[in-house]
Amino acid sequence: MININLNNFFNPKSVAIIGVSRNPKKIGQVLFRNLIDGGYKGHVYLVNPKAGEIMNHKVYSSILKIKEKIDLTIIAIPAKFVFNAVKECNKKGVKDVLIISSGFKEIGNVKEENKLEEYCLKNKIRIIGVNCLGIFDAYNNFDTVFLPRYRLKRPEKGGISFVCQSGAIGSAILDLSSDKGHKFSKFISYGNATIVDESDLLEYLEDDENTKVICLYVEGVKDGDKFFKIAKRVSKKKPIIALKGGITEEGSEATLSHTGALAGAVEVYKGIFKQTGIIEVSSLEEMFNVASLIEKVGRIDGNRIQVITNGGGYGILTTDAIVGSGNLELAKFSKKNKRYLRSKFSRLINIRNPLDLVGDADSEMYRTAIESCLNDRNIDLLFVICLYQTPLITTDIVDYISGFNDLCKKPIVVVSTGGEFTEVLSSRLEENGVVVYTYPEQGINSISKLFWWSNIRKKL
Amino acid sequence: MININLNNFFNPKSVAIIGVSRNPKKIGQVLFRNLIDGGYKGHVYLVNPKAGEIMNHKVYSSILKIKEKIDLTIIAIPAKFVFNAVKECNKKGVKDVLIISSGFKEIGNVKEENKLEEYCLKNKIRIIGVNCLGIFDAYNNFDTVFLPRYRLKRPEKGGISFVCQSGAIGSAILDLSSDKGHKFSKFISYGNATIVDESDLLEYLEDDENTKVICLYVEGVKDGDKFFKIAKRVSKKKPIIALKGGITEEGSEATLSHTGALAGAVEVYKGIFKQTGIIEVSSLEEMFNVASLIEKVGRIDGNRIQVITNGGGYGILTTDAIVGSGNLELAKFSKKNKRYLRSKFSRLINIRNPLDLVGDADSEMYRTAIESCLNDRNIDLLFVICLYQTPLITTDIVDYISGFNDLCKKPIVVVSTGGEFTEVLSSRLEENGVVVYTYPEQGINSISKLFWWSNIRKKL
Repeated sequence: MININLNNFFNPKSVAIIGVSRNPKKIGQVLFRNLIDGGYKGHVYLVNPKAGEIMNHKVYSSILKIKEKIDLTIIAIPAKFVFNAVKECNKKGVKDVLIISSGFKEIGNVKEENKLEEYCLKNKIRIIGVNCLGIFDAYNNFDTVFLPRYRLKRPEKGGISFVCQSGAIGSAILDLSSDKGHKFSKFISYGNATIVDESDLLEYLEDDENTKVICLYVEGVKDGDKFFKIAKRVSKKKPIIALKGGITEEGSEATLSHTGALAGAVEVYKGIFKQTGIIEVSSLEEMFNVASLIEKVGRIDGNRIQVITNGGGYGILTTDAIVGSGNLELAKFSKKNKRYLRSKFSRLINIRNPLDLVGDADSEMYRTAIESCLNDRNIDLLFVICLYQTPLITTDIVDYISGFNDLCKKPIVVVSTGGEFTEVLSSRLEENGVVVYTYPEQGINSISKLFWWSNIRKKL
Repeated sequence: MININLNNFFNPKSVAIIGVSRNPKKIGQVLFRNLIDGGYKGHVYLVNPKAGEIMNHKVYSSILKIKEKIDLTIIAIPAKFVFNAVKECNKKGVKDVLIISSGFKEIGNVKEENKLEEYCLKNKIRIIGVNCLGIFDAYNNFDTVFLPRYRLKRPEKGGISFVCQSGAIGSAILDLSSDKGHKFSKFISYGNATIVDESDLLEYLEDDENTKVICLYVEGVKDGDKFFKIAKRVSKKKPIIALKGGITEEGSEATLSHTGALAGAVEVYKGIFKQTGIIEVSSLEEMFNVASLIEKVGRIDGNRIQVITNGGGYGILTTDAIVGSGNLELAKFSKKNKRYLRSKFSRLINIRNPLDLVGDADSEMYRTAIESCLNDRNIDLLFVICLYQTPLITTDIVDYISGFNDLCKKPIVVVSTGGEFTEVLSSRLEENGVVVYTYPEQGINSISKLFWWSNIRKKL
């Protein structure tokens, strides 16, 4: 078995790119540009049989011509040349190889991939790939994703790590996340999992202190027993959110020609996810809704939710979602808090949950309500619905909520729906570390999933 | 029974506002401003007991002091003065009254609302409200929504009409829709449904030629038999999408103190929705995903879907969603089309569904694939996944897709996930009338719901 120390993939002192190109549209050159644009401080060695110079950088005709030590080699050449390139890496003493190249199992070229796998196992070479998109570390900006930065923005640093078997899903989500403000630690596209598989990556992220939550898109698990053991152990420590591609027979057929993965029966996966404490989601949208809650809130210790709203209909939809979740509850005010709220809000007919401050609520009322509920021992989490369309809500509500959130007394989840004006205020809240959703159902579902994990981890 | 001709609510030649205020933050003045800012061409009469002048407009001390004919009166004064104001309207001969004022059934003031209802029934006065947000017609810009336009943008004109019992949901969604580019015909917040209820509004929209799809947020239906009859008839003609607030016991309790509605058993509602051909959704997000498909695509005549993608993982998730939908199918190419595609895409290993053009697909390949599938009689609908992160896709793909969409040969649904670059291209597609989703599941679920309606309407 290979020692799976993956540090060189995320923090190499030197990198060689085999397959750098003179054509700026070709993967090899984009890879080089992205490394540079990402501010990579180590040395980059370029390799291309034609040698010469590219962008004022010397090009070596072979990796064997390089004298200095190389921590990581990135290979982006046609499949038929890959095996030989890996052999040269081995000769050069490079044990960590990221292979972008496709054209293996996923197109039926099983023989070539098996040969490569065998050779690497024998020579203790770690491969991420083949048929993958690359890696991105938001903390040191180490960027080997081969797509141009103007089309695919990179997200800011934070607590989400995304392990993704599909390159397209990875790239689209990475790009979307940069826009939505989801904050990342590491992104790893691992394609066919020739050597390093999803379990190895989970194991690596288990000890990555920047990773607070792991998102996993997987088509086929390579080694079920290994996955079960590792996932269960990691889940005790940090939450894993998984989306399984190919849950129908037809979808499963498609995985074979995508990453060469045998998708396997969906029931088996559902069972494994449940038993190992993995949070299963049914869409990418749901995955990142849950992830952004965890990124900002961490753990949830109780399930009694207090809803504060200025829109009655939103309160009703939220109530439906809480009760429908199966594991969350509507909090009941302590007598003291109820008395206090009653004295403060004599204009309200009902002091109940949802606490409907009604359409003419101002920011000060929100402040009073939130503060009082943070001190109520019958309440575990505050679900604050803020509809900014009504004229009496002033923008200082953002400061109030951010301030309460900074106290970290209880998790606060905000919901706001609207256009430009709402977007401005929601973005400010998010920048201040508050989790904000557009729709109540998104927030409640995310809380429910996190609460499920918070409980099950104790029993793993 | 009252003759429910609601034209005066949407197209009055003259309007009186009872309760206009000198304070620019007060509802009465915002109402007046919004009418003017919306470009209302008719005459507006202002009424306030203090008389005088507001914004260079004469203020009458009573509606009875106005000599000219008034089509519609808007009332925004405290509940206790409303009955008298309505009586004055009747004396003046105004039969259409929009009542913004709250403080009736929803706060337990049943007696006052019953008295009002009785009086209006007897005197054949149509009320929309009480306790509502107002009305907006995107075609003539007639705007009686009482929230300021800088906080709540109004959407462009199009085919969606939204009948909403909750003011807060209405305002938030109206605002969001303006940002997302959802296009509206009419928005009606109807609150407590004192006289005009959801059924009357459905009936009115049945014949509104601008309305292609009706969205309905309802907490409690006022008259079950009437609703059943009208909804079934309207559903034959145009789709109704409904979200029921208060589907849990706890949520239902909350509706009483919101719009004074008796929510009723959820099973009864589900049954009614199904039997009347109403598309039921479980969230606002889902409602507008479905609505925007219908707004752009209209009807769907077949369920055989061809997926074209440049991302394998997206193809797999889409396949899972199609098969999981229960009523959609993966199309199978005709022999002729398969032969043609095989000849055009010899570099691809698989010519199947999903048709994965893989990561280095360019716009020309999309054009070839789409054109060929539009001519394939085995295909009813094209589901085109376009991930713009890859460098070979040029922006002219937007023109290709828009051009094919304009031919109206078959519905085309596009999915694109990403950040800024993607947003720019998606917006351009949407402006050209193409329906675009961020995630495949959103698109497939919307198609599935529309297909359900397209079938059931024939049997109603």
